[in-house]
Amino acid sequence: MKQYLKLDEWSIIEESFDPATHEISESIFSIGNGFMGQRANFEEQYSGKSLQGSYMAGVYYPDKTRVGWWKNGYPEYFAKVLNSTNWIGINVFIDGNVLDLAKCGVKDFVRELNMKEGTLSRRFVAVFEDGKEVQVEAVRFVSVKRHEIGAIRYAVTPLNFSGTIKLVPYLDGDVQNKDSNYEEKFWLEVEKEAAADISYLTLKTKKLDFHVTSVMSFDIFKNGTKLDIQPVISECEKYVSAEAAVEANQGETVAIYKYVANVTSRNFGLGELVTEGKKLLEEAKAAGFDALLQEQIAGWADKWKESDIIIEGDVSAQQAIRFNIFQLNQTYDGSDDRLNIGPKGFTGEKYGGSTYWDTEAYCVPFYLSTADSSIARNLLIYRYKHLEKAKENARKLGFPKGALYPMVTMNGEECHNEWEITFEEIHRNGAIAYAIYNYVNYTGDKAYLSQYGLEVLAEISRFWEMRVNWSEAKGKYVMLGVTGPNEYENNVNNNWYTNRIAAWTMEYTLEVLDYLKANENARYLELVDKLKLQDEETAQWRHIIANMYYPVDEERGIFLQQDGFLDKEILPVKELAPENLPLNQNWSWDRILRSCYIKQADVLQGLYFLGDRYDLETKKRNFDFYEPITVHESSLSPCLHAIIACELGYQEKAYEMYLRTARLDLDNYNNDTEDGCHTTSMAGTWMSIIQGFGGLRAANDELVLRPFIPSHWTSFSFKVMFRNSRLNVSVTDENITVTNETDVPAAIRIYDNSYTVAGNGEIKVERASLAAK
Amino acid sequence: MKQYLKLDEWSIIEESFDPATHEISESIFSIGNGFMGQRANFEEQYSGKSLQGSYMAGVYYPDKTRVGWWKNGYPEYFAKVLNSTNWIGINVFIDGNVLDLAKCGVKDFVRELNMKEGTLSRRFVAVFEDGKEVQVEAVRFVSVKRHEIGAIRYAVTPLNFSGTIKLVPYLDGDVQNKDSNYEEKFWLEVEKEAAADISYLTLKTKKLDFHVTSVMSFDIFKNGTKLDIQPVISECEKYVSAEAAVEANQGETVAIYKYVANVTSRNFGLGELVTEGKKLLEEAKAAGFDALLQEQIAGWADKWKESDIIIEGDVSAQQAIRFNIFQLNQTYDGSDDRLNIGPKGFTGEKYGGSTYWDTEAYCVPFYLSTADSSIARNLLIYRYKHLEKAKENARKLGFPKGALYPMVTMNGEECHNEWEITFEEIHRNGAIAYAIYNYVNYTGDKAYLSQYGLEVLAEISRFWEMRVNWSEAKGKYVMLGVTGPNEYENNVNNNWYTNRIAAWTMEYTLEVLDYLKANENARYLELVDKLKLQDEETAQWRHIIANMYYPVDEERGIFLQQDGFLDKEILPVKELAPENLPLNQNWSWDRILRSCYIKQADVLQGLYFLGDRYDLETKKRNFDFYEPITVHESSLSPCLHAIIACELGYQEKAYEMYLRTARLDLDNYNNDTEDGCHTTSMAGTWMSIIQGFGGLRAANDELVLRPFIPSHWTSFSFKVMFRNSRLNVSVTDENITVTNETDVPAAIRIYDNSYTVAGNGEIKVERASLAAK
Repeated sequence: MKQYLKLDEWSIIEESFDPATHEISESIFSIGNGFMGQRANFEEQYSGKSLQGSYMAGVYYPDKTRVGWWKNGYPEYFAKVLNSTNWIGINVFIDGNVLDLAKCGVKDFVRELNMKEGTLSRRFVAVFEDGKEVQVEAVRFVSVKRHEIGAIRYAVTPLNFSGTIKLVPYLDGDVQNKDSNYEEKFWLEVEKEAAADISYLTLKTKKLDFHVTSVMSFDIFKNGTKLDIQPVISECEKYVSAEAAVEANQGETVAIYKYVANVTSRNFGLGELVTEGKKLLEEAKAAGFDALLQEQIAGWADKWKESDIIIEGDVSAQQAIRFNIFQLNQTYDGSDDRLNIGPKGFTGEKYGGSTYWDTEAYCVPFYLSTADSSIARNLLIYRYKHLEKAKENARKLGFPKGALYPMVTMNGEECHNEWEITFEEIHRNGAIAYAIYNYVNYTGDKAYLSQYGLEVLAEISRFWEMRVNWSEAKGKYVMLGVTGPNEYENNVNNNWYTNRIAAWTMEYTLEVLDYLKANENARYLELVDKLKLQDEETAQWRHIIANMYYPVDEERGIFLQQDGFLDKEILPVKELAPENLPLNQNWSWDRILRSCYIKQADVLQGLYFLGDRYDLETKKRNFDFYEPITVHESSLSPCLHAIIACELGYQEKAYEMYLRTARLDLDNYNNDTEDGCHTTSMAGTWMSIIQGFGGLRAANDELVLRPFIPSHWTSFSFKVMFRNSRLNVSVTDENITVTNETDVPAAIRIYDNSYTVAGNGEIKVERASLAAK
Repeated sequence: MKQYLKLDEWSIIEESFDPATHEISESIFSIGNGFMGQRANFEEQYSGKSLQGSYMAGVYYPDKTRVGWWKNGYPEYFAKVLNSTNWIGINVFIDGNVLDLAKCGVKDFVRELNMKEGTLSRRFVAVFEDGKEVQVEAVRFVSVKRHEIGAIRYAVTPLNFSGTIKLVPYLDGDVQNKDSNYEEKFWLEVEKEAAADISYLTLKTKKLDFHVTSVMSFDIFKNGTKLDIQPVISECEKYVSAEAAVEANQGETVAIYKYVANVTSRNFGLGELVTEGKKLLEEAKAAGFDALLQEQIAGWADKWKESDIIIEGDVSAQQAIRFNIFQLNQTYDGSDDRLNIGPKGFTGEKYGGSTYWDTEAYCVPFYLSTADSSIARNLLIYRYKHLEKAKENARKLGFPKGALYPMVTMNGEECHNEWEITFEEIHRNGAIAYAIYNYVNYTGDKAYLSQYGLEVLAEISRFWEMRVNWSEAKGKYVMLGVTGPNEYENNVNNNWYTNRIAAWTMEYTLEVLDYLKANENARYLELVDKLKLQDEETAQWRHIIANMYYPVDEERGIFLQQDGFLDKEILPVKELAPENLPLNQNWSWDRILRSCYIKQADVLQGLYFLGDRYDLETKKRNFDFYEPITVHESSLSPCLHAIIACELGYQEKAYEMYLRTARLDLDNYNNDTEDGCHTTSMAGTWMSIIQGFGGLRAANDELVLRPFIPSHWTSFSFKVMFRNSRLNVSVTDENITVTNETDVPAAIRIYDNSYTVAGNGEIKVERASLAAK
């Protein structure tokens, strides 16, 4: 872990150039707009270590599965986020010498990710071997208002000489995925044209035939005056470029404005890719860089209005939480229900696929509270659309009915291949059911249940019905051979969390059936018919709910993570010599498996999801037992512990956990940020402030707040959307102020008192006295 | 399963050519001499589906491990049996047309593996498109007397025309492993020379630099008269050949005698490979094909004298058992303690490595009873030599002391990479300890213990000491996270067999320590010092032995395969619809794991190894519980069940199990014989006759026999070496006759009566009356 970034409330700033941390910065300074995104690669050539990565949302490649030993049931393909055309490229030559920061001297380097405005900029002085110095100022963004558009301003000023500045903007589709299983390239060229005004390049992917057209155009200015230049154009395989040479005197600035439109066959017909791409590009270019930048600033202002969190008295925490919110908003904007939130967003390739249970467990709450409810709804509909594939998946594993959602997916098909995960980490099905409950509970949108929700719930309940078996020995239903959220245990029996979420799914499905029968009877009958739902099935669900086996330790009063957990040697993490940590880098897999150490919340995940069903004492006993043996080696772990710690009043522990999640990438805690950011866990950071320190819950159509404030902070405030109102909640040691920024009144509870915050109104209550109760 | 081979007592015979079964035949008709071997590929070109495979014992390649998701502790490399120079090749052209059975018509095809003489022969008539017919007769062998020598006679007779027969003998080193992880070729050319009299080719492997020189020479005869021909020689990358064209009239026979010597840097210095290869080749050629063949027949006669089993009244069973004995003797002859018995011998590449626990559990007994004790001893010394690497392996997995032998190895290093096997199927350590006990008990060679045995036993005991942990919950030692012999369960807790063999290892180690202390005190002290063995350690072993946890079901009176086994739904295999079987081809892996179905003996493996410690009733209860839920999908399973069934008097079950093991490859039961034969399980077949039907054990320095005879057989007899005597045991319904073929008297027990069989003497006892007792 190396902290090399400057603290700032609104920006991520790097103040010197170090090739050793360049790949980490490439991840952290990534930009995106939900439709495309890219790592913070340099525009100009860079021959040092770099992970060149530019990604188009939803454009993936089913790479042939690679596995040492095949197991029946493994998927043939592993869907990969596709590295696609490098469209930012501008090669720069100074009097014939290539500008390459791996080869030049570098002075006064500053890289900045301006999160308020959504721009990435860079400024430096390059010193060539012959002593010539040029100053470079580059700024770029991917437009949040025009999904297909990216724009770059790249300015070069010779500082101590006069000479020729040659600029070569290009589109390069000859790219490769770092994680290609067989070192294959996934793109084929379709067509291209290099021309003085507009050049384009259309590629298609092998196998699935995704087409992507990138169109570029540019202007060159000297000292603010546009030049009329006839560039030398050039083409080769999957590559187009233009070359413009400009004579510049010492102190004169040559700037190129490069505009690019990227359009894909996901959104346009094959025949219209080039024309639509050109059209969008021409519109953008006509608007001009400055206007596009103003749009960008306004667009981000809107996002911040909905989702900002302000922390006073702690710049580091302030910067961190904004970074997390910024990256989430860059990754997913909710307007396309075929998209989801990849574990690395647009910041890297690792883990492939786009969708894990992270979405339901961690991201849905973020979008529920910071955006219109249609956004979270789209995340739910994504799974609804994959229901048939989830049913097929269950058949493939031998279940005559029910649906098992994949562990990792791009299009609904499973694409992961570790048997203990793919086949056994089935609790993911529970999170998908839970997200429906969470959405309906938060938004009050009960109509969702009859439209989409019930079908998913019923098929998941059927899966659980098939997956349990009656144990003669126990006289109970058991669930054998599963992996719980704690992936440091594999193939265990009766994982408490999985058993619990399975029974809960059936309970909730029955509740929804009762609700629909009573309230939407016609649709209810239609659905019963569509699902061919039998009375025997619902009776069986009731029987399972009533007779599910839950491992417990009566003496300690805790739920047991799984059968036999107490056969392990129990030794708190803090008693392990530090060189053992992180376990996943220092211990062999079997040693991890048979140890007591927990990767991420497991029993506690259940106590979080079903928090209203367990009393504080129960939560406390389980937290006190499990947290000390938890190593938090999943980025999804600390946030959840922070939330429960807040609930239990463990202020110090809560803040410790918060720190581990908040600056995970900025401070490269897990030593893997160069692979990309931990995008989905960023939602967990947000949760740890809102649900942890804010104590926010939704219950009985009220928003509930039980805030406490970490002793390191002066105040914190956050935005939260609830039932068409947007509230700003501000917390100090003394007061809680809730301001309604909309004209829709909001019902809220603070600790145990209920209030209504009138449209555009504000309430202020004393925190200390209420919290004490 | 398709039965296409003719029944014959001494040969495997195929009487027509079917490309669909060609690869199966290539496996079954394989030949080898313990130092080299090869699949039954055709000498002439064959463009149809074929697995070309020629292997040199101990010459392997550490292919880079391929795995989907890396786990800490996985080995970097996976040692592969190396496909090496194709030295049998003779291309044949008839009037310019290539002879290729995939392209010609084929008549009167007969392929024969003569197991009595150790030769592979083939006879057929090829019909060309232009109507020309030639008869081909080919015979070849790898010499059991001259380890480096192979010889081929290949004769061509034009049947209905006169024309040119062109013969092109060659050496081709441009070969590839079918299972190469990255489609890489593993050989580099070192030197070569193609010449009229002697040609050679030296290749070396990448990475480990094994050098292999193949030297060839040949003579051509027409109608029995040697021709003086100047062949056209030719060379290209990793390839040398000579070309001889002979005019032949209709009915005249042109025969080529091709002699090859293969020498490796395992046995010769790099500088002498070519000279030694040439020398060996010249000696062989000087002896001539017929003399070499006579040597071969004599050599195999010696082997059969030691190991034959005769079954009267059942040709199918007779053929099968000889096939198994033949393949075992082809694979390993025990004269090189750096070699071991690969799971496919020289018949294929699958599974890589050369050594599994199969060697100790299944092969050691075969060699103990059918060869001089030095042969089995060499198999033990092989592991002794790997002790340091086994200690390293244990360190790598985090154990501060002890040794964990690898699951699969070539040189002592682990080369398997499924975590549930590599890290957890640790019972293999127990089999390695057990083989020491087995060897000493059978041979009486107690000196082995102080020479080599104790060190291995002590380090394995230390491993078990480290691997168990004290369960506060149970107040016992437990062993968590293991995979037992039944690989259809992974990562289970307290596998009864593993716990039992672990405790047994410690018991036996303590017993050996006591023995050495009392009988070889000086050496004992030396060893205690060398091992730095502490009193606390042996005390701890005693504590573990006394307090090991064994899962049991009191009600059924059985040992439980592992914790929680009775939570499974128990349904006998015979109640499964047949389309479910074999499970490993029809069920997803997780379904197999959580089912009750057992791949191979697990609890029963323990009751077999430690058979003298459990009474018949205990064995019966466990057999009755476990066998009906065992699917025998490991080739190592039926034999062991046959043995226990014999002991329990379950005659029908015993014979059913015997049938499943005996003709596994000949009848391609598991539909995978094309990958190679199941060499190690062939020793199990031998065991099921000798230890099953023969009831053979060794106890208290006596050989014990409790024979019964399957009702399908008239009689059976087998050879068995015991303490320097070789006995022939012949069993009919009425009598048991034991003939001593040596002049060393032998102490034996038949059922419960003790006898001494004098040197060259014979005893005959009534079976029926004794067996009834």
